[in-house]
Amino acid sequence: MADILLADINSPKDLKKLPLEQLPKLAQELRDFIIDIVATKEGHLGASLGVVELTIALHYAFNTPYDKLIWDVGHQAYGHKILTGRKEIFETNRQLGGISGFPKMQESKYDAFGTGHSSTSISAILGMAMASQLKGEEEKQHIAVIGDASIASGMAFEALNHAGATNANVLIILNDNAIGIDPSVGALKKYLTNVKKGTAKEENIFECLNFDYSGPIDGHDIELLLETFQTLKTRKGPKLLHIITTKGKGLQQAEENQVTYHAPGKFNKKTGDLLPKSNISEPAKYQDVFGETIVELARKNKNIIGITPAMPTGSSLKFMMEEIPERAFDVGIAEQHAVTLAAGMATEGLIPFCNIYSTFLQRAYDQVIHDVAIQNLPVIFCLDRAGLVGQDGATHHGVYDIAYLRCVPNLILFAPMNEIELRNILYTAQLGLKNPIAIRYPRGKGVLKEWKLPFKKIEIGSSEELKSGTKIAVLSIGHISNMVSNVISEIAEKDKIGHYNMRFIKPLDKKQLVKIFNSYEYILTIEDGCKIGGFGSAILEFANEIESQIPISILGIEDVFIEHGTTEELHKISKIDHLSLKSKINNLINAF
Amino acid sequence: MADILLADINSPKDLKKLPLEQLPKLAQELRDFIIDIVATKEGHLGASLGVVELTIALHYAFNTPYDKLIWDVGHQAYGHKILTGRKEIFETNRQLGGISGFPKMQESKYDAFGTGHSSTSISAILGMAMASQLKGEEEKQHIAVIGDASIASGMAFEALNHAGATNANVLIILNDNAIGIDPSVGALKKYLTNVKKGTAKEENIFECLNFDYSGPIDGHDIELLLETFQTLKTRKGPKLLHIITTKGKGLQQAEENQVTYHAPGKFNKKTGDLLPKSNISEPAKYQDVFGETIVELARKNKNIIGITPAMPTGSSLKFMMEEIPERAFDVGIAEQHAVTLAAGMATEGLIPFCNIYSTFLQRAYDQVIHDVAIQNLPVIFCLDRAGLVGQDGATHHGVYDIAYLRCVPNLILFAPMNEIELRNILYTAQLGLKNPIAIRYPRGKGVLKEWKLPFKKIEIGSSEELKSGTKIAVLSIGHISNMVSNVISEIAEKDKIGHYNMRFIKPLDKKQLVKIFNSYEYILTIEDGCKIGGFGSAILEFANEIESQIPISILGIEDVFIEHGTTEELHKISKIDHLSLKSKINNLINAF
Repeated sequence: MADILLADINSPKDLKKLPLEQLPKLAQELRDFIIDIVATKEGHLGASLGVVELTIALHYAFNTPYDKLIWDVGHQAYGHKILTGRKEIFETNRQLGGISGFPKMQESKYDAFGTGHSSTSISAILGMAMASQLKGEEEKQHIAVIGDASIASGMAFEALNHAGATNANVLIILNDNAIGIDPSVGALKKYLTNVKKGTAKEENIFECLNFDYSGPIDGHDIELLLETFQTLKTRKGPKLLHIITTKGKGLQQAEENQVTYHAPGKFNKKTGDLLPKSNISEPAKYQDVFGETIVELARKNKNIIGITPAMPTGSSLKFMMEEIPERAFDVGIAEQHAVTLAAGMATEGLIPFCNIYSTFLQRAYDQVIHDVAIQNLPVIFCLDRAGLVGQDGATHHGVYDIAYLRCVPNLILFAPMNEIELRNILYTAQLGLKNPIAIRYPRGKGVLKEWKLPFKKIEIGSSEELKSGTKIAVLSIGHISNMVSNVISEIAEKDKIGHYNMRFIKPLDKKQLVKIFNSYEYILTIEDGCKIGGFGSAILEFANEIESQIPISILGIEDVFIEHGTTEELHKISKIDHLSLKSKINNLINAF
Repeated sequence: MADILLADINSPKDLKKLPLEQLPKLAQELRDFIIDIVATKEGHLGASLGVVELTIALHYAFNTPYDKLIWDVGHQAYGHKILTGRKEIFETNRQLGGISGFPKMQESKYDAFGTGHSSTSISAILGMAMASQLKGEEEKQHIAVIGDASIASGMAFEALNHAGATNANVLIILNDNAIGIDPSVGALKKYLTNVKKGTAKEENIFECLNFDYSGPIDGHDIELLLETFQTLKTRKGPKLLHIITTKGKGLQQAEENQVTYHAPGKFNKKTGDLLPKSNISEPAKYQDVFGETIVELARKNKNIIGITPAMPTGSSLKFMMEEIPERAFDVGIAEQHAVTLAAGMATEGLIPFCNIYSTFLQRAYDQVIHDVAIQNLPVIFCLDRAGLVGQDGATHHGVYDIAYLRCVPNLILFAPMNEIELRNILYTAQLGLKNPIAIRYPRGKGVLKEWKLPFKKIEIGSSEELKSGTKIAVLSIGHISNMVSNVISEIAEKDKIGHYNMRFIKPLDKKQLVKIFNSYEYILTIEDGCKIGGFGSAILEFANEIESQIPISILGIEDVFIEHGTTEELHKISKIDHLSLKSKINNLINAF
């Protein structure tokens, strides 16, 4: 094994012992190591392959962890993790109890700042650099690596605008590969293309913001990177280095199909071919139900617009972007803009479907309140990835949406139990709602084989009795209702259990609830969202309003951040899984 | 009155009848009209005075309301309101039942989009312009007026980045007066100064983003504005016109003291002199308690940092910025950046106090969760203007913070009852908390004459029994607790009433609550925040946990947007005022 350089590298200290000329070999090994493990264990591939040389050069040139290094978003940090002591446990990546798929402060002193959502790195590194100034640590270096898609997000601009007016010692490395998860969009991207072609004019946009700009240079040339770093180390103040890289570099298929190989699932590590997925005719993904249904609706309703902030593939809005490009838009990583753009369109009678992952809508919370809800504009928010999302972990779980949206006046809040309900609420929403609506649905698959049935309107605020009972009423919301149904079917004394798919968290079906509170002796609520302020809390508020004395149990996510693991594992941890619910219900029955 | 041009102008149609050469006279009249009314009725002055010529020129040149016109933030829209049919009712500005201090769609068809928070206008106008494209309305004009402070906010950049990549017919008018409420900051501001001086290089930052850039031109020259508009009307695609104006133009004092005259209160309309405020030694404003206390603490604790996104005056952080400028920062209208900057500083052991108005923290909700709470960094959020804020109305009330923050793990949530509690929690927070904390306090004055007493540490999660009782326990949170105390003191059977200043919404003082639930027969909660998911809801969740059967009443803001009026009026409307509470308590007592 002596000729495997990576075998002896357990920290940047080991890396620094290598002579410069061995670094390209190390790069090859690091790339192979990443491919090897991601091919079987899955994860984010393309981004990390694209920055192998950059990662080596950074840890070789700088004095990490004393010098601070932040990876924006963090999809690209696998090489960084492997070089900074996590090689042996890298195969636990994204697994329950294993290392996180993103940089994480708790995990390593080399992870200067946890990431996951985009465009935070410049703010955080500036905070660290300003701290160093105050402490008199003048030689300390502060580096943020950020992609061209992420730097176009508003928050990054706010940070550039501030940093450019300071003399803080920050180095922003713009990793320009012209793609985020999907290809980058927007005026800045076009501009950067001009810069690369040499057709931009004299003063660079970053120079306008008072940054010392260098580049563009080849981000796969380790020697050039090292030279450049040596020069930049000696310059004080805010600096931006523009490097050009190829996402997926080194694996032909990943270079050629950058969107697919962002997170390809299992693949053949030699050929790069994706491993065939199981052939069983599976239920559709919720995202595809959205993607196919909006196309179907938009063909007939010319006012329908589709908007995604940088998730055409993940949201499946790409189906509409392909078929009806004049009415379907990727606006880039710009959730705030996406929401207010939709509001502006709604004032003109258009019907915007604004598809944003639940966790990313947190970025546009003010716009939901201030631009949509206050003006009561009928924007349709489609919140994909609601609930626990699995391996992406704490930064990506969509578990707060019910709590933070339920308090917003005018807003309707709906969670479909299955593909048909999602399909029908999308249909209902475009018929001419008087209010904005948020529709939350999970990552992954539904439960039905056939869901493309004729559209049916869903009455706003209506729930559904799935099963009547005598003692215990289970009130559920969304996809988790299917698990509840399965559990109840296995209970011996199932006659005692009623089950209600409440559908609307807001407005609640108060008529149905009054009936339930008059007919049962115990209420159990269950949701895949936080308990504080969530759906169960809404039921408590209702029970208090009608002065009910019936005992109520709330099942949902406790008041802690849930880490990564499979969705099933995380549901177990949160006691909202099949077994936990079954045992809860059996205990209740025995108590009667 | 025939020689008063304004007398005959009730809509832009009337305005268009005037010959060009009479417009400067009209500008003078419009300015006088604004000064006249704001001098006695109060409101935002400087911004509207600065755009008198622009307002006239826009409505003269364009075909409003068919052509769409959005005023970013909306502080500057008084002239617009007066020229578009609201002259006669302008004296009701910001009063209960009167017109709003901001553009509002419900109020007038000339208000194309409601504003209040900054930097939304480019997104909204782009949405309208894209709608016009789809409808084939090719000649329709879409104009957004945005200040240089607001255009530097991230959301505006996101919109520019999108707009620049479209061929939408938008005209962004950059109203550059180098000041927001406080002077503008940041690299973009410096850059714009260079543009004005002619020292910027060849390619303009807006041209980099693919905008057709014109200017800078004198925004007080009506004729030049009109000529420029005629030219720009004929050009398709995204355009940006850079105009230079003076905030407060036409009133010498307002030009010279732009921060003070942003919203000066009552003043002498001839001299501009501010009318003396009542001389009674009044309680301090909460903001000043914050501003003075942080200076006092920061003198001793060298790790303390102050951060404000563009509110040095409104938050009183300016006291620290004056005395300890190296540790107190105005980062511009950049709430997202402010929060993550603070997080970055906290990783290095600094103690950042991030002061953001409650309503504006909605802009940084994701950063609170993703960058601060998940990493459990002890950032101290000071949420000024929490609760109902009065005349600024629906866009500015800080009534959702409890609901949207309560569900965030790791975060401590505190509301001081008075100046001393605010002072002591600021002291406590900088002693070395292990968690982030949000401290919410209202606009306006406290209740004490003397509050600069020696610091005392507040135990996290501790409440205070203000008065014991036998039947009814009133649980209150924050400043409203003072009103509750006054009410109870007036109740005949006051012995029956206990009163608890709960202080911490999270963590709740569960020990005290158990005692309360064991000692009383009725619980009443009161808060100046939304009922859904709020403090009362937290008490319901607790009651459910301990399986209490005691009846609970929740007082707070109902599930509607509350409009403008005095805070007292709005409290009455929300039934959280003195009389409503007194009658509620008396009714309860009679029911026993």
